Amino acid sequence: MKKVLLATSILAATAGFAAAEVTLSGSARMGVIDDFGADNTGFTSRARVVFTLSGETDGGLSFGATFRADNASAANSGDAGEVFISGAFGKLTMGDIDGAAQQVVGNVDGVGLTGLSDLNEAVYLGAGDGGSDPTAAYEYSSGAFTGIISATNPDNNQGALGTDLDSTLALGVKYATDAYTVALGYEDADGDVSHIILGASATFGAISLKANYGQASVGAVDADQYHLSATYSADALSVTAFYTDEEDFVGLGGSGKAYGLGASYDLGGGAKVVGGYAKNDTADTSAVDLGVSFSF
Amino acid sequence: MKKVLLATSILAATAGFAAAEVTLSGSARMGVIDDFGADNTGFTSRARVVFTLSGETDGGLSFGATFRADNASAANSGDAGEVFISGAFGKLTMGDIDGAAQQVVGNVDGVGLTGLSDLNEAVYLGAGDGGSDPTAAYEYSSGAFTGIISATNPDNNQGALGTDLDSTLALGVKYATDAYTVALGYEDADGDVSHIILGASATFGAISLKANYGQASVGAVDADQYHLSATYSADALSVTAFYTDEEDFVGLGGSGKAYGLGASYDLGGGAKVVGGYAKNDTADTSAVDLGVSFSF
Amino acid sequence: MKKVLLATSILAATAGFAAAEVTLSGSARMGVIDDFGADNTGFTSRARVVFTLSGETDGGLSFGATFRADNASAANSGDAGEVFISGAFGKLTMGDIDGAAQQVVGNVDGVGLTGLSDLNEAVYLGAGDGGSDPTAAYEYSSGAFTGIISATNPDNNQGALGTDLDSTLALGVKYATDAYTVALGYEDADGDVSHIILGASATFGAISLKANYGQASVGAVDADQYHLSATYSADALSVTAFYTDEEDFVGLGGSGKAYGLGASYDLGGGAKVVGGYAKNDTADTSAVDLGVSFSF
Repeated sequence: MKKVLLATSILAATAGFAAAEVTLSGSARMGVIDDFGADNTGFTSRARVVFTLSGETDGGLSFGATFRADNASAANSGDAGEVFISGAFGKLTMGDIDGAAQQVVGNVDGVGLTGLSDLNEAVYLGAGDGGSDPTAAYEYSSGAFTGIISATNPDNNQGALGTDLDSTLALGVKYATDAYTVALGYEDADGDVSHIILGASATFGAISLKANYGQASVGAVDADQYHLSATYSADALSVTAFYTDEEDFVGLGGSGKAYGLGASYDLGGGAKVVGGYAKNDTADTSAVDLGVSFSF
Repeated sequence: MKKVLLATSILAATAGFAAAEVTLSGSARMGVIDDFGADNTGFTSRARVVFTLSGETDGGLSFGATFRADNASAANSGDAGEVFISGAFGKLTMGDIDGAAQQVVGNVDGVGLTGLSDLNEAVYLGAGDGGSDPTAAYEYSSGAFTGIISATNPDNNQGALGTDLDSTLALGVKYATDAYTVALGYEDADGDVSHIILGASATFGAISLKANYGQASVGAVDADQYHLSATYSADALSVTAFYTDEEDFVGLGGSGKAYGLGASYDLGGGAKVVGGYAKNDTADTSAVDLGVSFSF
Repeated sequence: MKKVLLATSILAATAGFAAAEVTLSGSARMGVIDDFGADNTGFTSRARVVFTLSGETDGGLSFGATFRADNASAANSGDAGEVFISGAFGKLTMGDIDGAAQQVVGNVDGVGLTGLSDLNEAVYLGAGDGGSDPTAAYEYSSGAFTGIISATNPDNNQGALGTDLDSTLALGVKYATDAYTVALGYEDADGDVSHIILGASATFGAISLKANYGQASVGAVDADQYHLSATYSADALSVTAFYTDEEDFVGLGGSGKAYGLGASYDLGGGAKVVGGYAKNDTADTSAVDLGVSFSF
């Protein structure tokens, strides 16, 4: 995503100081999709603009915010986008942000122009939109090590009769080198559900592997999920396959067993041809898409 | 509409390559209006910003997208704005776009600061918002000739019980020189309604004439519509009159017989004084407005 | 609020003419809040972007518009943001603007990161959103003197069964020097309620005082409100206290008796640490917040 710097930043750079600035970037895509369970193949397109706000205090702290134009209303109430301040003390962020476990472990690679329902993505707790945001996170990095703690908004009105549920608290640690990453996350939602998830990624020449394994406790019942992906890259071409099992997690928002296969071809300048196929084995449904994606 | 180029495009131009960029433009207006059937004369104002995203692949294909800030949410799902890629093969566009017949024939000139319900505009099929978008269109131009084909989204859930109606398909051809344009469009909505429309425009010195005539078949019933406009321009002043007859088309969304008269005076720098009067003869209602319009 | 000028304005400045342009600015904040009556202390954050459109006619009239990205839809119908044209004749503005009384008298200083329900703000008539906008105002300034007249939209559909209420009309005059300001406003809503309000502000070294006193007549009943604030500034630190009494105005949207105390510390570059405490004595509730605010 190419950042479009406005003129003041150039002037500021020339003058040797850091001016506050608002920059624009964007993305778009267009193509065809035969979605899970839909009767017809259809067209799909979208266009987005992202605002990035950044500045620096006299004492050298960085601060900023970012949100999408289509989320501007939600960003005005902390339910979309994010705001941060960072320095030697670490980084403090608020907004519609992922919990610490999701930030460090993340997800294995997905496929398709549209993501095809993002079956590659693991289930994390407390990542719901709106009511529990702004979520707050504190991150500290030192060399290859990163640690993050996060909490959803304790004043959330998400309980019965408008009472507040306990915050979803999360903790994540990551150790990353050029060749591999290992990460461990723990999260606890309202004292009822806890989830521990381990993730790893490694690159072997043209091949990049990612995997994660999560185990949740819902009262006395245990459940587990895992996700694997492999991506092969050669010049402009990239091919990805993933396999996931969230069958135990269906009650927590999981999708069952699924796999996907996809490819993208880079046309340069921010344009790619992208397509993919995904199958939900549990529901016995599949989806396929193909098109072009653009970044600006 | 003056495009505001951001700094990266200038840097890119200097460096001799085409960077992806997001540019801003805008419009605004303010005035008074006595609308059709409303009891009081009132104030009217609005302000808009348009995002224009553009880029170029290594192989020389152009791509881009555009949408208004107030449509950012709909643009995120293909229901507003548009996305395109173009090259020697032609141009492929998706989004909230007009059908091919409307793209080539268009509309005769309208009047007023606010458009006064746009009584100058012809009825076209399948131009509805939302459910049937993204619409897709393919355009090919060679010299003075342009041909376009379009289809609304086949996966549209617009039928009974959420089933899909057939796409509205359209075909348009246009031949344009500096002095005149002729265009022919054909469109068919779900196999039930078809519409053929012929348009022409010509410029004679200070006078520009536009006209179109459309004939629709709804089952065994035929209906026709026509629209005429003349615009006289002299220095900063521009005066427009139009006459339309859509009485046969009322069942298809037409407005009956109507006429309008308007003028605008260019103040330079993107500002105009604009006013107009429009009369719907069939409904025996009229509207008048006056104000200033701005482009940025 | 630092304005980010786009490149065309720089080019225009170089070339010696004023190009129409769209500029971006923004703000953000993050912190904690224990709100009035809420059971839990919670997180609060938000991020905003503002579009500013400006241009100049060949004859030297300035024109422009401004609205927030999160208000883009409302700005498209005159219910948010504003549009203006100005010159030697004065300035004409339409949109979601304050009435003339509010424009000249304004409000005493408030406290807190979030404003803490803005208890410092006086009650003005016809400042409601939506239905009565666009509001129109005409302003004329000469030296230290400014006069403004305003009217909400006469075509407002705010009466019973969709009829129109009379416009809220307002008149304001202000005399301002570097050291002090006095202002007087009068407003009348639909002939039923009238309100006269007197405001003054003065600066004594590091201390800035503001006060206003308003008296409303609702039929035969009189009501009054007043607001006071004092702000002390020393280098980066600023401390504010306010006291208000709107008890007579509760039926008109007032908040009772209230007071607040707050402070901000400027970190430079557009960042501040801001916190405050506010108490609504009539409702016997209080609120407190603390965080960082950013402008871009």
